[in-house]
Amino acid sequence: MLAIRWYGKRDLRLEEVREPSIKPGFIKIKVKACGVCGTDLNEYLNGPIFIPTKEPHPLTGKTAPVTIGHEFAGEVVEIGAGVKGFEVGDRVAVFPVIHCGECYFCKRGMENLCVNFGVTGLSEDGGFAEYALVRPYQAYKIPESVSFEEGALVEPLSVGVRAVKKAQLMPGDSVVIIGAGPIGLCVLLVAKASGAGKIIVVEPSKARRKKAEEIGADITINPSGKSVEEVIEEIRGETELGADVSFECVGLNETFKVAVESIRKGGKAVALGVFKCLTSFDAKGLVVGEKSIIGSVSHSADDFCRGISLVASKRVDVRPLITSKVKLEEIVEKGFEELIKNRDKHVKILAAEI
Amino acid sequence: MLAIRWYGKRDLRLEEVREPSIKPGFIKIKVKACGVCGTDLNEYLNGPIFIPTKEPHPLTGKTAPVTIGHEFAGEVVEIGAGVKGFEVGDRVAVFPVIHCGECYFCKRGMENLCVNFGVTGLSEDGGFAEYALVRPYQAYKIPESVSFEEGALVEPLSVGVRAVKKAQLMPGDSVVIIGAGPIGLCVLLVAKASGAGKIIVVEPSKARRKKAEEIGADITINPSGKSVEEVIEEIRGETELGADVSFECVGLNETFKVAVESIRKGGKAVALGVFKCLTSFDAKGLVVGEKSIIGSVSHSADDFCRGISLVASKRVDVRPLITSKVKLEEIVEKGFEELIKNRDKHVKILAAEI
Repeated sequence: MLAIRWYGKRDLRLEEVREPSIKPGFIKIKVKACGVCGTDLNEYLNGPIFIPTKEPHPLTGKTAPVTIGHEFAGEVVEIGAGVKGFEVGDRVAVFPVIHCGECYFCKRGMENLCVNFGVTGLSEDGGFAEYALVRPYQAYKIPESVSFEEGALVEPLSVGVRAVKKAQLMPGDSVVIIGAGPIGLCVLLVAKASGAGKIIVVEPSKARRKKAEEIGADITINPSGKSVEEVIEEIRGETELGADVSFECVGLNETFKVAVESIRKGGKAVALGVFKCLTSFDAKGLVVGEKSIIGSVSHSADDFCRGISLVASKRVDVRPLITSKVKLEEIVEKGFEELIKNRDKHVKILAAEI
Repeated sequence: MLAIRWYGKRDLRLEEVREPSIKPGFIKIKVKACGVCGTDLNEYLNGPIFIPTKEPHPLTGKTAPVTIGHEFAGEVVEIGAGVKGFEVGDRVAVFPVIHCGECYFCKRGMENLCVNFGVTGLSEDGGFAEYALVRPYQAYKIPESVSFEEGALVEPLSVGVRAVKKAQLMPGDSVVIIGAGPIGLCVLLVAKASGAGKIIVVEPSKARRKKAEEIGADITINPSGKSVEEVIEEIRGETELGADVSFECVGLNETFKVAVESIRKGGKAVALGVFKCLTSFDAKGLVVGEKSIIGSVSHSADDFCRGISLVASKRVDVRPLITSKVKLEEIVEKGFEELIKNRDKHVKILAAEI
């Protein structure tokens, strides 16, 4: 079968590989749609980051090359020995997290913090292929009303679900989203569906601001050419005394400052961005203003179920996030390379005719 | 009557002043006990900080000189026109917060964030005097079983109640308290009463570490001569993968780092310290470790009620926090000056024979 294999930085190869054979305790899926994630792009541009290259992953035993892709959905074609609850023909979205079930965090129901955490499509072969093997706890049935393309988008949507859950968003809360990439826009969709009041999006790309408006932002702010203080002032001007909740989806010192200082006293800043260095901030303002800064990473099975529920119930429409659909064979050039060249024009590129 | 009046930095005066006359909407209290707070000491050493000296306070109309003292309890001796629900002879602890009832925060039940926030004993005459006037919403009845001295300690205890509430402490949570001054020790008392598991206290003063052990700390760590990393390592060694919750009660860059990095993934750091400058920290660790940093300031009426309840039910014994009791006339020399000279030997000094 065809698969997109990560060999190293800037080295993704379309290869003919052996179709995976069913194993006890797994189900085999015919992949129908798989999205390119920022994490995938990062592995392509700067990897290896999560992909194991020297030590095999403790849960999968795999090292590179691996078939990349962890945002995918498909149809069950074969069921391994000992697996119950699935039938051939089931339509499923894949929750890509792999966890050990035995560590401190797994024992306490925090699988997303598992010390042996892995991801199908990074720590083992994933979704940019014709077929994939996944564990039963990774396969979530989706109804006929949810397309495979929408199913592939449940994964990034669930990252937004987690962030909004961690914020304990309340009806009417004013919201600032800093960064309208795929994750920022997923946060927007979930916040809107969760009863957010005014939603403000800060994003330099015009196309992404337009997309944010299309899917529910009340106000978009272009930070280009403005100081951090001016952006904060603009947000505070649009809210009564600052926003109730902010979501930091960038990962820079400046955007972190916006996230913490544009919220009102008692407000919450949820941090999802990928930070690279020490970040300085006004701890006095945090204490005196009784603010909270809340880290949010990845998603849990619960977040994933809620993601499916939001899509299936039509409370959230993820389709506007898809800016391009290409064939599996084309995904390196028309997906990864296209995102590098024209990142600001795109949100989600899918391999959708697999 | 006698009162301790703040005139300026290092200028507290014991004066004979006119006894306050009852006013409509107020109750008059014979003060029975009043404690010296770190905030009072800060006004004495470095003030004015909260005490209004130029513009009158928006809610009280007062400027310095003011009678200092906001941790007090006493007996109702006179009731102003229009006040219901009190009788002469009622024993009360005073909730010193003054709020406007009209701002954004007051309307939403967040009086401790009131934009016109004031404190009896800073923004108007307070408890280091024979008599004080307070609003009915500031007077909370205490049963016979709670002494006036314990009543005076409800105020700092409530700061601990708030911090523990904000942490959403769960039964069995391992706890690190950084700084065993009066606030750190109050956090310890409340955390212990709330079902905390192992409690670790980091404090350089030997006397305070001893006090922490006396009132319930399982382990105390002397950070003197150790690097921040060594202290973090020591805490992590005493917990499985880091503590569940930390309480930062100091306000330095180093102690903030200990608070954030000594907790496990998914853990919470509650910040109560008085920070003076920008604080740098590992935002990447916050996101990837899904940690939260939660500011906690002052207390609400609800926190105060819980403080009384904890003392009245004997779930918390605040008496060990009292390290000295002096006469009102002596409080500058034997309270404020003593705390400056021998701060590490004391927790709470009360004027208790008023």
